[in-house]
Amino acid sequence: MTVRERLEALRQEMKKRNIGAYLVTMADFHHSEYVGDYFMEVRYISGFTGTNATVVVTEKEAGLWTDGRYFIQANKELEGTTVKLYKMAVEGEPTVNEFLEEKLPEGMNIGFDGRCIMESQARELERIASAKNGKLSGSEDLIDLFWEDRPAMAKSEIWELKKEFSGVTVEEKLTWLRGEMKKQSAQGHILSSLCDIAWVLNMRADDIPSVPVFLSFLYVTDQACTLYVQEDALKAETRNYLEENHIAIRPYDSVYEDMAKVSEKNILFDPNETSMRMVRSLPEGVHFAEDANPSTYQKAIKNPVEIENTKKAHVEDAVAMIHFLYWLDQNKEKKSMQNDGPLTEIEASDYLADLRAKAPDFIELSFETIAAYGPNAAMMHYEPTREKYSAIQPKSFLLVDSGGTYMSGTTDITRTITMGPLTDEEKHAYTTVLRSNLRLAAAHFPDGCVGQNLDILARGPVWDEGLDYRCGTGHGVGHISNVHEGPNAFRWKVPDRGRAWVLKPGMITTNEPGLYVEDGYGIRIENELLCVEDQKTEYGQFYKFETLTYVPIDLRPVIVEELTYLEKKTLNEYHAMVFDTMKEYFTGDELEWLRQATREI
Amino acid sequence: MTVRERLEALRQEMKKRNIGAYLVTMADFHHSEYVGDYFMEVRYISGFTGTNATVVVTEKEAGLWTDGRYFIQANKELEGTTVKLYKMAVEGEPTVNEFLEEKLPEGMNIGFDGRCIMESQARELERIASAKNGKLSGSEDLIDLFWEDRPAMAKSEIWELKKEFSGVTVEEKLTWLRGEMKKQSAQGHILSSLCDIAWVLNMRADDIPSVPVFLSFLYVTDQACTLYVQEDALKAETRNYLEENHIAIRPYDSVYEDMAKVSEKNILFDPNETSMRMVRSLPEGVHFAEDANPSTYQKAIKNPVEIENTKKAHVEDAVAMIHFLYWLDQNKEKKSMQNDGPLTEIEASDYLADLRAKAPDFIELSFETIAAYGPNAAMMHYEPTREKYSAIQPKSFLLVDSGGTYMSGTTDITRTITMGPLTDEEKHAYTTVLRSNLRLAAAHFPDGCVGQNLDILARGPVWDEGLDYRCGTGHGVGHISNVHEGPNAFRWKVPDRGRAWVLKPGMITTNEPGLYVEDGYGIRIENELLCVEDQKTEYGQFYKFETLTYVPIDLRPVIVEELTYLEKKTLNEYHAMVFDTMKEYFTGDELEWLRQATREI
Repeated sequence: MTVRERLEALRQEMKKRNIGAYLVTMADFHHSEYVGDYFMEVRYISGFTGTNATVVVTEKEAGLWTDGRYFIQANKELEGTTVKLYKMAVEGEPTVNEFLEEKLPEGMNIGFDGRCIMESQARELERIASAKNGKLSGSEDLIDLFWEDRPAMAKSEIWELKKEFSGVTVEEKLTWLRGEMKKQSAQGHILSSLCDIAWVLNMRADDIPSVPVFLSFLYVTDQACTLYVQEDALKAETRNYLEENHIAIRPYDSVYEDMAKVSEKNILFDPNETSMRMVRSLPEGVHFAEDANPSTYQKAIKNPVEIENTKKAHVEDAVAMIHFLYWLDQNKEKKSMQNDGPLTEIEASDYLADLRAKAPDFIELSFETIAAYGPNAAMMHYEPTREKYSAIQPKSFLLVDSGGTYMSGTTDITRTITMGPLTDEEKHAYTTVLRSNLRLAAAHFPDGCVGQNLDILARGPVWDEGLDYRCGTGHGVGHISNVHEGPNAFRWKVPDRGRAWVLKPGMITTNEPGLYVEDGYGIRIENELLCVEDQKTEYGQFYKFETLTYVPIDLRPVIVEELTYLEKKTLNEYHAMVFDTMKEYFTGDELEWLRQATREI
Repeated sequence: MTVRERLEALRQEMKKRNIGAYLVTMADFHHSEYVGDYFMEVRYISGFTGTNATVVVTEKEAGLWTDGRYFIQANKELEGTTVKLYKMAVEGEPTVNEFLEEKLPEGMNIGFDGRCIMESQARELERIASAKNGKLSGSEDLIDLFWEDRPAMAKSEIWELKKEFSGVTVEEKLTWLRGEMKKQSAQGHILSSLCDIAWVLNMRADDIPSVPVFLSFLYVTDQACTLYVQEDALKAETRNYLEENHIAIRPYDSVYEDMAKVSEKNILFDPNETSMRMVRSLPEGVHFAEDANPSTYQKAIKNPVEIENTKKAHVEDAVAMIHFLYWLDQNKEKKSMQNDGPLTEIEASDYLADLRAKAPDFIELSFETIAAYGPNAAMMHYEPTREKYSAIQPKSFLLVDSGGTYMSGTTDITRTITMGPLTDEEKHAYTTVLRSNLRLAAAHFPDGCVGQNLDILARGPVWDEGLDYRCGTGHGVGHISNVHEGPNAFRWKVPDRGRAWVLKPGMITTNEPGLYVEDGYGIRIENELLCVEDQKTEYGQFYKFETLTYVPIDLRPVIVEELTYLEKKTLNEYHAMVFDTMKEYFTGDELEWLRQATREI
């Protein structure tokens, strides 16, 4: 079937159900950041292959919303499909909701797969539908009715993350979680977020690209705990582990019928993380205790075992990164090792992946490596692919943003690397980003601070020039989980439907200011920061950051006179720490390179 | 009557009305920051003379809550009264609400003068009362029943602030205000806040200490505008002005009966600024459109006429301040000019007040001058009085926080002045506070930022040492109005019942970080910052600050090596601007002094 035929098939199903607009989202049943092939309905219905998009189909129109990094690609892929591109966050372009408000015919319904739309979004859609005297129609996945060669749902083997890695047993976590439920007078608690379930149960798998979790739901009551999961993903050992911990097993897709029969009267769930279908399956009379999942905040506060392990992960990661930086430095002016052409982004990316894979407890890359040369780096989410990549020339910068998931923890690091002569503008931009990074790293702040209080430390030097980066300064990092895992973050605005969370010791957040000049260059310097206790004085408990990333920051572009003496001090202390931590892993020329790369300036 | 007798009289009235706890607050009917003598019920019922306190009286107990600056004074003044001191914001001490929750007997009511308690606070009290099956009793001022020699209510002559000072006519403001009401679908709007009324009507008076406003309420509808005011405070000219602008006049205390008869169905008011009595006078069926008063935000955005005038006020103020600083410098090691003793805080304060009064359009001091020598300055709100003041010694610092209200505008400035040799600790603390001040002054930030985003620029150097100042970094400044007038402010936390307001060009906010060491010294450096447009780039409209205060910052304590080169640059640019702006007002030795005081470092 062509895209046009698929749209036609969808419209026929819509018509039967009085649906005036059907929403297709890039979402699974768990509000996951990345989704597996089974959930690629947007790709199927529109032909668009990017990772962020929403499609709305009406009787006469079809629109696709995506963000700036995909405008060119979407234009190309949507050609001839009748699907029209709407640009997210561009002035004058309607949002999905504005489009629905205008286009939904009077008396008709908004349709979607209610398992893929979270309750909080459903409430906004409900407002739009009822303004037109329509309703929500969320009980069916209409695309599934005619998608014949739909890929299977991921079902990887699920394994236990032992206490030596997790630090706290599932028994302890469930006791704590029941205590939190009690505080909210809740007898039941629905968990749909896969990272939360993986954390509570100390279990991992490989169902989601780059995130070692498994498709499941968890329902916790005072007495019981039920895991809804694809049962044949459980090997005997894992079954035993669940049994020992009194966790019942039920089929993944029986969760909705089970929710319809719960006897608990007050049920805690996060409306941003729980699907409309799930919430509306609950029996009448149930009281909703709506709040963030308690585990979301708690799992961000890494325990001592997780912290110790994470530091090990960062050492392993730094070994790979330093080998890589040394290799780049040696090879940057040479040709490709594989052919007669120049060195390419994809070759650099592959070489780095191979180095990471050598670590004994490597699991997978924590996200697709961004190795972006020159102007490519100005596209914040650029990834080279085997079909499309650029050559690395002996000038300007190569930006490499990458990370690994190890049995010990998860890493995320960006370095912007000098490949040859730089312009004065490039040097100044690099120095500005470096100053931003250093200022945030050196922060001291009392208990009670949120990311919004600190963000300007990083963003200040960039704002001083009338520039900005269109993203947060940093995101929380999960532990053998999603590399982007809040709620901690450095942002200057509280996002929609979000709130500001207090920074606490044990939280790990990236520090990644940048500057992106279209058709010019992209610069980002990213370290991970662990929040730790600083002094306690009459003014309260103060916190500071310990940097977990042990990789030299390229000193060649730095205009030393532009650094304040405090920034210079922070940089020199950082590099002394890096050398001290990493020197034992290198010898000979590489050790000498490391010594030079971490020299005092 | 003694305090004990007064408490007894109150308890008899309480008993008649089934009131289990009676609340007396330091408040007028308008939630004013300062209140006139008529409203000093706390002083009458407890004997406590400070400016911030709440008293709760039950059948057997009486408690007074006040903040840290008054603990010693309160202990002394409450001796023998049976009133017990409860310390605000001290761990382990109950709050007023916690006290009420514990002490209110079952089935009894909470009483207070409902004109003095704002609706939002009343709702909290209602929650407490109904938990005990009691109600609120707010229709009577019980203390007035037996307070025989109660001072009269202030009633000063009300005058028009001409367009040359206000910039916008009352007609224009009412048209705008009705537009804002329309946006909220409100047909009626109650204004109780005196500064808002003074701003909307372009009228001023002298009913409140230090704030040139008048006791009144305003009720605005689409067609009409009614001013509730003490009618004999209006001279003929002002009556004519009101008449010309179609503003009806009604007696001040008839507002409650009038509100009971309004025909508008949707009424806009701010529950934090409108009394319970007022709100609950409204007829049944009225819909409450609750929000901040539109005028609160709008009046913070000074118009071009107000800005130009304010700059004139700052020049006049700086003339007085520079004369004062020069005089202090010449006289600091000498004796008092009036007697054989040393120079005193009160003498310095008087001398400065006299200098300000010489300005042709001086109205009054914008607040009581704080001239605090040495350790006195560590008490943030210390004011010398004629009964109690300290001598100024030829060492350490004199902190002077002062300001004036002029026909052109309102000022607020703090300088910490070297009176002789300083310790290394004093120099370092001074330099730290100066760095804090300079960093905030140099901020560049895009539209959308709130005070919480910027506060760390000032607080950072203080936090770096595990220190803090227990107040905001800065407050909004009114125009010929309250010197403390939000909603703009620099704070790191959003206050209770408050919200974060976006900073806009035209807003004037103080920048006054400090360090306060008990029994040691107090340092504060305060300038006023006007938010102005900076560059507009692809990243949006940026803003920066223009400093409105034209008075040298004492350079003698500065440890130059502790300043970053950026901080030094900001300081030198500021001083060059001060010299340039002020040099024409001085000659001879004073000009030479000014040149020295603003020298480049």
